[in-house]
Amino acid sequence: MIDDRDTGLSLRPRFDAAGLLTAVVQDAATREVLMVAHMDAEALRLTRETGAAHFWSRSRQRIWKKGESSGNVLHVEELRIDCDQDAVLVLARPAGPACHTGARSCFYRVIADDVLVPAG
Amino acid sequence: MIDDRDTGLSLRPRFDAAGLLTAVVQDAATREVLMVAHMDAEALRLTRETGAAHFWSRSRQRIWKKGESSGNVLHVEELRIDCDQDAVLVLARPAGPACHTGARSCFYRVIADDVLVPAG
Repeated sequence: MIDDRDTGLSLRPRFDAAGLLTAVVQDAATREVLMVAHMDAEALRLTRETGAAHFWSRSRQRIWKKGESSGNVLHVEELRIDCDQDAVLVLARPAGPACHTGARSCFYRVIADDVLVPAG
Repeated sequence: MIDDRDTGLSLRPRFDAAGLLTAVVQDAATREVLMVAHMDAEALRLTRETGAAHFWSRSRQRIWKKGESSGNVLHVEELRIDCDQDAVLVLARPAGPACHTGARSCFYRVIADDVLVPAG
């Protein structure tokens, strides 16, 4: 089914029961997918207003600016929304590693047959 | 906090309360992010065994093989998992448009000041 939200040009985010959108962060230059997180309405607003990616931390139950402690801010170049408007794609220039493990991307392990293998 | 799940080489998916992981699909060749969906344990197993991306449809409450009706199958080249193992990245060769609107990617609209603008 295709409705106006899917094809129209109005921003009408479809927040889930917890008030969240899924947010995928992609490096604007290399196109590497860096991380997946969540945004509530306030995080989306702050991201748009400041140009720095903000998220809602489900574990800490608060807004966080990515890099607020590490300095690894994500400078937003473009924000996109998907067809049913429940997910956003953040194209960003990362100031440092996106992952709390120190890896450039959180997706640094490949699922092999029975184990995980660090990506090349 | 960094624990063994974040850095170890064992696959230990962290399914949410609904039994789901977030799945981000990226075109293996162009690196375009195509869609975001969800996988339960069975969808992950089917994806790994068949090499075609399977998801859990929250609206239809059932497993679906992407392309089962449209033919736009996603041929999986690589699966990655993120640090806390609650999201997977599917690197795939799409047989056709990923979006049900006919767009190549579900993220075909940019969030501008007050409206959405089709991506260039």
